[in-house]
Amino acid sequence: MNHSRIIVDTIIEAKWIIPVDPYEVVLDQHAIVIDKGIIVDILPLSTTRSRYHAQEIISLDQHALIPGLINLHTHAAMTLMRGIADDLPLMEWLNKRIWPTEHQFINPQFVFDGTQLACAEMITGGITCFNDMYFFPDSCAEAVISSGMRAAIGMVVIDSPTTYANDCEDYLAKGLKVRDRYQDHSLLSFCLAPHAPYTVSDSTLRNILTYAEQINVPIHMHIHESSSEIQINLESTGIRPIERLRQLDLLGPDLIAVHMVHLTDYEIKLISQHGCSVAHCPSSNLKLANGIAPVQALLEQDINVGIGTDSAASNNRLDILSEMRQAALLTKLNSEKAGILSAHQFLKMATLNSAKALGLEKTIGSLSIGKAADITAIDFSHFNLQPCYDPVSHLVYIADREHVSHVWVNGKILLNNKQLMTLNSQELQYRANFWQERIATTLKH
Amino acid sequence: MNHSRIIVDTIIEAKWIIPVDPYEVVLDQHAIVIDKGIIVDILPLSTTRSRYHAQEIISLDQHALIPGLINLHTHAAMTLMRGIADDLPLMEWLNKRIWPTEHQFINPQFVFDGTQLACAEMITGGITCFNDMYFFPDSCAEAVISSGMRAAIGMVVIDSPTTYANDCEDYLAKGLKVRDRYQDHSLLSFCLAPHAPYTVSDSTLRNILTYAEQINVPIHMHIHESSSEIQINLESTGIRPIERLRQLDLLGPDLIAVHMVHLTDYEIKLISQHGCSVAHCPSSNLKLANGIAPVQALLEQDINVGIGTDSAASNNRLDILSEMRQAALLTKLNSEKAGILSAHQFLKMATLNSAKALGLEKTIGSLSIGKAADITAIDFSHFNLQPCYDPVSHLVYIADREHVSHVWVNGKILLNNKQLMTLNSQELQYRANFWQERIATTLKH
Repeated sequence: MNHSRIIVDTIIEAKWIIPVDPYEVVLDQHAIVIDKGIIVDILPLSTTRSRYHAQEIISLDQHALIPGLINLHTHAAMTLMRGIADDLPLMEWLNKRIWPTEHQFINPQFVFDGTQLACAEMITGGITCFNDMYFFPDSCAEAVISSGMRAAIGMVVIDSPTTYANDCEDYLAKGLKVRDRYQDHSLLSFCLAPHAPYTVSDSTLRNILTYAEQINVPIHMHIHESSSEIQINLESTGIRPIERLRQLDLLGPDLIAVHMVHLTDYEIKLISQHGCSVAHCPSSNLKLANGIAPVQALLEQDINVGIGTDSAASNNRLDILSEMRQAALLTKLNSEKAGILSAHQFLKMATLNSAKALGLEKTIGSLSIGKAADITAIDFSHFNLQPCYDPVSHLVYIADREHVSHVWVNGKILLNNKQLMTLNSQELQYRANFWQERIATTLKH
Repeated sequence: MNHSRIIVDTIIEAKWIIPVDPYEVVLDQHAIVIDKGIIVDILPLSTTRSRYHAQEIISLDQHALIPGLINLHTHAAMTLMRGIADDLPLMEWLNKRIWPTEHQFINPQFVFDGTQLACAEMITGGITCFNDMYFFPDSCAEAVISSGMRAAIGMVVIDSPTTYANDCEDYLAKGLKVRDRYQDHSLLSFCLAPHAPYTVSDSTLRNILTYAEQINVPIHMHIHESSSEIQINLESTGIRPIERLRQLDLLGPDLIAVHMVHLTDYEIKLISQHGCSVAHCPSSNLKLANGIAPVQALLEQDINVGIGTDSAASNNRLDILSEMRQAALLTKLNSEKAGILSAHQFLKMATLNSAKALGLEKTIGSLSIGKAADITAIDFSHFNLQPCYDPVSHLVYIADREHVSHVWVNGKILLNNKQLMTLNSQELQYRANFWQERIATTLKH
């Protein structure tokens, strides 16, 4: 009999598909069918080729397909400062190393080069989308566009002048102008990004809230990262930062609260009641000796927790696979329960939960029919992943960036058999070296 | 003029050499000269070729050479049980999953296959030597010999019968026989390996001590891993395990105390006074929710601390690079000081300190003239390691197994441009699959 097959762009056949939604499901020997950048079907291999005719069929018979990983908090351009300031506490790290280097070097070219390098690193680690906060967001947007990734661009605001902007009004005006310019780009979204409670005044925060409501974007902010920052707020205002944000009406479902290491039970309840999301950055919190965010307690209060890397200056890598592993291990430590949460939970945090925090859960975060084809393939054929009794366990506890073989965003391939398709690695090396030579001379003084 | 050059086997030229001894030194543009498996010189590139004539010159112009990493605690054969029992507390993990599976499956072939797979994994991660504790140590020894690695083979003793041995005398007799057979092998050394205080009786421990002194080998033992194990000892004897070991005279410079998570100040002093070594296994201790060993307090008391992975059933990988990173991050967390210890300290733990624990510090653990050429090369050319202001920082905080390019043991190459030279990866896959199929059927019941 002659059945007519549906013509589509791409079929990706895989050993396993882990869609994340539905939760805790592992599909054996299935395929994802993609047309015009959208997932149009997920079905058993046995029926795929009889039902669809694809321009391109990619067979990954030793691989798992997962939703593209999302990095819920980073400062991509700081990749150019990777490892320049190890082993310092947060405030010293900021005041003595990061801010002086930024003051001397950052400009649009620095941000473009640093963000491209970060995009390359993230693509090789299976990350398809990131939430950025940095100066010169227009340069960040251009670098993201060149990479083919998806990103939420931060309209950063901080109450001190930089080479980028003079004062909070200038930051806001510049940020909003970038959003106006790029808001029709299908892979870009935007956040208002006040740096932190200790660097942004009440009046600026009120202003930001007004804009966030008008243009309907999330607010992306460092909150309760270190105990010293809480102390500063207590001394200047008599209340802790989260209480201050509550009084300013900033707590709500559009708030992405980054770090959230030091929390009282009352604060956790507040965050839950207001439906805020949390961006958990476990390695950065350890490296700066800030502590461990109480992930288990947050989840028990139904708070949406995603995962971020923070910048390469405090991590020192932009690797969500290792952050999933770190988050899983630290939750066991903190709860003193080895069986506290399954590996599935951490994969969900790094995909669907982060998508929800960005307001993008209808577009990305799971391998679901109708969503964008933002997909990462993990190659399980290496003997370092053998034997394999449970691919989700291996994904969280073992898989490294070396096992990431393919990455697609909106159905477009960005990593093909570990080769970058949109960025030129030699050019990236050249630009990294250019900046390293300049920055290194200042470190010797 | 015609200078006569010294004829040697191999010259390895590198961008950086990090010898570990002398401490905190990074040599730029140097070479290691190897003859008959021994490091005979380390000198600047500019003078190497005029002074030496080598059969083979290897130029690694984007690489750092470090001493081969040492895995101070593992159960290599358990790699065949990688990830079969996630998310369970230690005692449940042992009683319900690991021990029943072992009871059903382990035999000499299981141990040989599992150890070979582990050796392959460790070689790809830059590990040149490991300290093993498992049943059928003769099969372990054979697998190690086939891989070309160096290992300390555990003569395991446990007060319960297994398919390997009937009772403690049988374990001891079999272990000693293995040592007799292989003691002249240049790459093998031996430890007496009583499993743990809660599984070995006083009389057996006395017996072990006698043998350890007679044949001059270290004692390798799990100690104070979980709080429940301490509780068991308290209930049965009225004292904590370390006090019991003190009374039995087991504390001494030949003791490698593994885990040491739960320690009082008195116990730390005891360990220091007796010159014991500690094998720190940070990921395993997190994964089984046991806690964090007080590394900083141990170092302050001049205790020799090395690093181990534990088995792939509780980690789930045998990767000392990631354990160094984990150890560094957890020390910052535990001390609440971001600047507590430098990256150099953790590289030393994973090399020279572990060598010292094994009594092998005259042979391995640093890149020093007269020591064996056990060397690992890390390729820094990937853009994920760019820019690089400090190679030791990148080594500890960023480098993954994918960056390990070459490994030598006694001057023999085991990994050449990421290719295994002694083991066959297809055969390893086939054997892993063979055991997986058998073990997996029992997990479904």
